[in-house]
Amino acid sequence: MSQFPINCPVSNLVDDVVTLAHGEGGRWTRRLIRQRILTRLGNIHLEELSDAATLPKMNGAPVMTTDSYVVSPLFFPGGDIGTLAVYGTVNDLVVSGALPKWIALSMIIEEGFPLLSLDRVLTSIAAAARIAQVQIVTGDTKVVPRGATDGIYLTTTGVGELIEPAPSGPRTLEEGDVILVTGPIGQHGISILAARENLGFDPMPQSDCGSLWNAAEALRNAGCEVRSMRDATRGGISAVLHEWADSSNTTIAIDEHAVPVSSEVRGACELLGLDPLHLANEGTMVVAVPGKIARCALPALQEGGRCPMAAIIGEVTARRLAPVVVRRGQFAEIPLEEPQGAPFPRIC
Amino acid sequence: MSQFPINCPVSNLVDDVVTLAHGEGGRWTRRLIRQRILTRLGNIHLEELSDAATLPKMNGAPVMTTDSYVVSPLFFPGGDIGTLAVYGTVNDLVVSGALPKWIALSMIIEEGFPLLSLDRVLTSIAAAARIAQVQIVTGDTKVVPRGATDGIYLTTTGVGELIEPAPSGPRTLEEGDVILVTGPIGQHGISILAARENLGFDPMPQSDCGSLWNAAEALRNAGCEVRSMRDATRGGISAVLHEWADSSNTTIAIDEHAVPVSSEVRGACELLGLDPLHLANEGTMVVAVPGKIARCALPALQEGGRCPMAAIIGEVTARRLAPVVVRRGQFAEIPLEEPQGAPFPRIC
Repeated sequence: MSQFPINCPVSNLVDDVVTLAHGEGGRWTRRLIRQRILTRLGNIHLEELSDAATLPKMNGAPVMTTDSYVVSPLFFPGGDIGTLAVYGTVNDLVVSGALPKWIALSMIIEEGFPLLSLDRVLTSIAAAARIAQVQIVTGDTKVVPRGATDGIYLTTTGVGELIEPAPSGPRTLEEGDVILVTGPIGQHGISILAARENLGFDPMPQSDCGSLWNAAEALRNAGCEVRSMRDATRGGISAVLHEWADSSNTTIAIDEHAVPVSSEVRGACELLGLDPLHLANEGTMVVAVPGKIARCALPALQEGGRCPMAAIIGEVTARRLAPVVVRRGQFAEIPLEEPQGAPFPRIC
Repeated sequence: MSQFPINCPVSNLVDDVVTLAHGEGGRWTRRLIRQRILTRLGNIHLEELSDAATLPKMNGAPVMTTDSYVVSPLFFPGGDIGTLAVYGTVNDLVVSGALPKWIALSMIIEEGFPLLSLDRVLTSIAAAARIAQVQIVTGDTKVVPRGATDGIYLTTTGVGELIEPAPSGPRTLEEGDVILVTGPIGQHGISILAARENLGFDPMPQSDCGSLWNAAEALRNAGCEVRSMRDATRGGISAVLHEWADSSNTTIAIDEHAVPVSSEVRGACELLGLDPLHLANEGTMVVAVPGKIARCALPALQEGGRCPMAAIIGEVTARRLAPVVVRRGQFAEIPLEEPQGAPFPRIC
């Protein structure tokens, strides 16, 4: 590209977008890595630029998780694909009872993707990694021809260290256990839908995209015994509750009025005919604790966990026909349908 | 999809391809995982089906690497995207001096992708993981609408355990060190090009796609001190040698006639005007050892390492203007150009 004089518009056009050469492992890839990635994400491991990162020894058991992110649109109220990729992977480690430590970041970018958008995504990744106190230690960049992907897809794989004692797991749920949620539900799903379809809600629902570390740490600090924690992503809290009920052969009963839902999400759901219990969250988890722990867990989440809207939403009961039921009023219990899938694709 | 009677052809059509519902985290995703993924890749970690895998404690330092695979075509002589994804990640760990242990597998699949092709890829992944003695311990599946990806992309992230002493690294290369290669070069690049462009070579060049574990282990077993090992993927051995020469501020001199190249790759390169030194490999590495070690390293690779075509191809010399030179005949030394990128995209 050196054949273009410096002020030639063609040169600027070429410089403004990702090209196939940026993904082919040669000089242009190295330039992309040095000028855009290392300046934002750099740390002693990533700066080695070797094929693999050699990391400090761990005392606890390693915990590993991976997710690809194909969200559309890439930028939405409350976050973008970069924050989603970091927090999503961090949260999978957190709910498994681990201290998140390292992330491997793989990017598949479409030829012609604006470099400014890439910068924006990388800056979000850097900010989220700083907040979640994880390091991006290794990575990969592939560029595919126009039409062979839709903008940019990210895959983040996280490694954390197990903190003992870990939650005993959904199989150990039993009658009398209490179910909590850390905040208002459905924010992420509605935020994506509104951004994608240009729905002019006012105020615009914001994604809850964020780290669950503080919430999990607050439960540990308060000495609360936790049966299970799960970030309620695709399929929402309905999917989590169905899985837990099946694992433990119980029925989980939820009080509809106890579930925190913001007025904008409630309004959007009524308008669009959606159930907030089925909508995706990206920084909200469901927690199951023994009944006697509920009075310790709720203030721990609300205060130390910085989840002021955390609430007790139901309890574990003996198995009936329906794995999950919703209480509406004092007597009516309605079975909650299991989500077949997300109500709309590409939410994460 | 239950509205279709069992023998209805539409029902079969729907069952034969990946649908958006397979990627939405609900019942169809679970069916895909149980029927197609667990049956092939299952192990105690993956079967937990939790958001993250809790793994046994490690004694050595963890080593972590990630790569996305966007190869086109998906199936080629000598391998496919599945074998590539496993061996590519395994080899990045091996050349870093690690014992490969666990792999996280993330798949981005296009709506309409044939389930039989997915089965074929998963079967390849299973076979490669068995050969390389790694476990697929966690994963993710996303399905994007038609046109938002090209068939299937895989991202594999590997974690291994460092074996002490690790190679001292490319910065430690010095005058008199000897450069070896473990086998004939350019096989993968030519195999992909021939398959993509339907070039009717006879015999068809086969990709070298495979694990480098035996080669690295043979060097260790023979007690050979290794300065650096690197699998020569995008940019071929030229890219590796340029990086090493720059890291160590030396010039690396290669004897053209010593470099093993199969007759079919040589023929294809002459026909297409390509230099095998720039072509990608996926199971061939370059090794730098101190001069006095060469006589131990070569037989170790050829016998214990099962690399019968391994060869000494050059040595490290004092820094001159060109970082890498190729000797042609007794006196002529020609500077080797640094690859700008791969000569063609989507080779891995």
